[in-house]
Amino acid sequence: MTILNATHDPKLRSWVASANVAGCDFPVQNLPFGRFRPAGSQDAFRIGVAIGDQVLDLKAAGIVDTDDMNVLMAATVAERQALRARLSEGLREGSTQQAAWSQALCAQSSVELTVPCRIGDYTDFYTSVHHATTVGKQFRPDNPLLPNYKWVPIGYHGRASSIIASGQDFKRPQGQTKAPDAEVPSFGPCRRLDYELELGWFIGQGNAQGMPIAIAQAEQHLFGVTLFNDWSARDIQGWEYQPLGPFLSKNFASSVSPWLVTLEALAPFRAAFERPAGDPQPLPYLDSPDNRAQGAFSITLEVLLQTEKMRLAGEAPTRLSSTNTTRAAYWTPGQLVAHHTVNGCNLQPGDLLGSGTLSGPGASEAGSLMELSAGGKQPIVLPNGERRTFLEDGDTLTLRGYCEREGAVRIGLGEVSGTVRG
Amino acid sequence: MTILNATHDPKLRSWVASANVAGCDFPVQNLPFGRFRPAGSQDAFRIGVAIGDQVLDLKAAGIVDTDDMNVLMAATVAERQALRARLSEGLREGSTQQAAWSQALCAQSSVELTVPCRIGDYTDFYTSVHHATTVGKQFRPDNPLLPNYKWVPIGYHGRASSIIASGQDFKRPQGQTKAPDAEVPSFGPCRRLDYELELGWFIGQGNAQGMPIAIAQAEQHLFGVTLFNDWSARDIQGWEYQPLGPFLSKNFASSVSPWLVTLEALAPFRAAFERPAGDPQPLPYLDSPDNRAQGAFSITLEVLLQTEKMRLAGEAPTRLSSTNTTRAAYWTPGQLVAHHTVNGCNLQPGDLLGSGTLSGPGASEAGSLMELSAGGKQPIVLPNGERRTFLEDGDTLTLRGYCEREGAVRIGLGEVSGTVRG
Repeated sequence: MTILNATHDPKLRSWVASANVAGCDFPVQNLPFGRFRPAGSQDAFRIGVAIGDQVLDLKAAGIVDTDDMNVLMAATVAERQALRARLSEGLREGSTQQAAWSQALCAQSSVELTVPCRIGDYTDFYTSVHHATTVGKQFRPDNPLLPNYKWVPIGYHGRASSIIASGQDFKRPQGQTKAPDAEVPSFGPCRRLDYELELGWFIGQGNAQGMPIAIAQAEQHLFGVTLFNDWSARDIQGWEYQPLGPFLSKNFASSVSPWLVTLEALAPFRAAFERPAGDPQPLPYLDSPDNRAQGAFSITLEVLLQTEKMRLAGEAPTRLSSTNTTRAAYWTPGQLVAHHTVNGCNLQPGDLLGSGTLSGPGASEAGSLMELSAGGKQPIVLPNGERRTFLEDGDTLTLRGYCEREGAVRIGLGEVSGTVRG
Repeated sequence: MTILNATHDPKLRSWVASANVAGCDFPVQNLPFGRFRPAGSQDAFRIGVAIGDQVLDLKAAGIVDTDDMNVLMAATVAERQALRARLSEGLREGSTQQAAWSQALCAQSSVELTVPCRIGDYTDFYTSVHHATTVGKQFRPDNPLLPNYKWVPIGYHGRASSIIASGQDFKRPQGQTKAPDAEVPSFGPCRRLDYELELGWFIGQGNAQGMPIAIAQAEQHLFGVTLFNDWSARDIQGWEYQPLGPFLSKNFASSVSPWLVTLEALAPFRAAFERPAGDPQPLPYLDSPDNRAQGAFSITLEVLLQTEKMRLAGEAPTRLSSTNTTRAAYWTPGQLVAHHTVNGCNLQPGDLLGSGTLSGPGASEAGSLMELSAGGKQPIVLPNGERRTFLEDGDTLTLRGYCEREGAVRIGLGEVSGTVRG
């Protein structure tokens, strides 16, 4: 159980002026970790903390002696909390560190950010019952939501090597597809290229093989969260995915945002999760009073699209959808950790647990084009008159996320964006 | 295309006498790479080459300057061939290296071997049409072999963190299962614990993201092969696997043999692969004259079981089944590489491609207990009278593999074994 402390005080302000601007993603209450280097350099990436529009270089400030984020992520909860307290004290108004730490600041606009850590294993879950139902209808009209869904936090392994940093383009994949009325499959560029609005939960301390993590301890093993876009080739997926699950339809690229927003920073945005009336209660290894009372997190999510035509015309991205995790997720992050390890599977610092596509119940809350366009049958119309069923070359897709509530300072997850190239 | 050269000469003998014994897995024609350290030590693992019952320490012999197998695996084909030629020349009878290299030898019985490299991403394929059909019948009686099977080399991502070295025990996993007649799932130890007889193909040089590897170049990216046992919890698998594939039923442990037998060593054991009459030909990206003529490899595989009772009675392991890859695999290793990257997915040195369970067409050629016991309905009877449908605590399962043909010296893959603990 996380308890609010002085680092969450809404009255705290930073001596970094940009951190105090209303709507800023990175106030002194946030303090997310990322990896950066001077833009255009080939230096090794270093660990930094986002504050306003600046990055604090943790090594230059004498706060850590490593450039390896995975080492930092392996810290105990007590060590993490101590580090957070030190950062909060040093960055707040009136701190005696101001003179020294100002020397270790650089503008975010002057740095290159990257994938926040070395990702060992990547697992993708399927935590939105709305997404599972809508997509299930398209792949299996007679059997949309499978009988295991409300018992098993469905997940599968993904590809770590092809996870890319925000801002990095990727090539439209090629592959096998088979139209329903075709006798044999054909080969060519994906024609139903989609995004998936996800969160990426990163593992901090791991567990030894054969030693499950109980739900009561599960959150101690979560370091932080990012935005995550699991680009998907729906036509390839439909033909390849049975019986062992999606493969080439997913592993050509996934994009992750640069800033790890810690569990400590998320503490004011915890939420209860009660299952809808009539749904079975989780098995004991997935259940605890704490998990029910505050195992969920309230994070607002947005999807934005900017087509090449919009970009050339200087038009801002348009919002495709928006939802909140409390409306979308059927399983809490703690439940994902407890489930993943209940068989003895070992998690390691830097492992990534994708939430799966976070679609809320409403039509405007869908986290993929497959849902928004009813499987490609109903094109969406953009403000400039362009239409989309799936993504076209030159499209830039951006995910944003933030937490807000009465009595707390808003914190942001930043954004992740990527552009499709032909 | 690999051409036989002096390193394959069947007349070659080694000055390491044990390498010349008939039936030895590691004659001078083999020269597989592994990682070792003195048994009982906590030293860093070093790179060695198996020769007879000895290991040649490559750094001590002045042959490499790294302890990092992944660095060695990233070498070009020309570099690998040069290294093989040097090892072959130095280890053969009459070599001028004998005096110097003898100082860099140690007995295999005196060392600890481990997983042969740092495994980045692990993919498991499904290359035996016989396994796919038999298992498909059990999970989907009305629909055993899915329509995509003969077109798509079906594969999915697995868990790298839980891959363990030969000889390492593992704990029987716990998890959710649901009996067909039960209303709700229950939780407890796996009751249908199985092994899977597989080969592990390891990637050498990788490819850049977005740049597929053509089938003509595919084998240049394969470094070598090991035995691989993908332990499986069938009762957990049956309940969890839809719609995204197996997850906790697989990721508690997989065991890999210590020696990477190189593509160069396998050259004399290449085989043609012709599809059965009436089967569709592969799409062009999976097809080439070379792949048809010699894209397959002839490797004989055996499964051995020793129960705890047998061990206590001093009884040798009993053979459960045996097959040959040419009878079991519907796709060649080159086709797996071409398929995996055709969408732009990037492979990296040390990545592992599991073959999937290699079951041949005959009943005695099945690569899992699920097949041998007809899904648990027909127990197999062991020589001591014990019966097995699935694995019991204390059972030790061993996979062995070797290549033999007229006119070539037999080479072995060694073995991988593991014991189930309660």
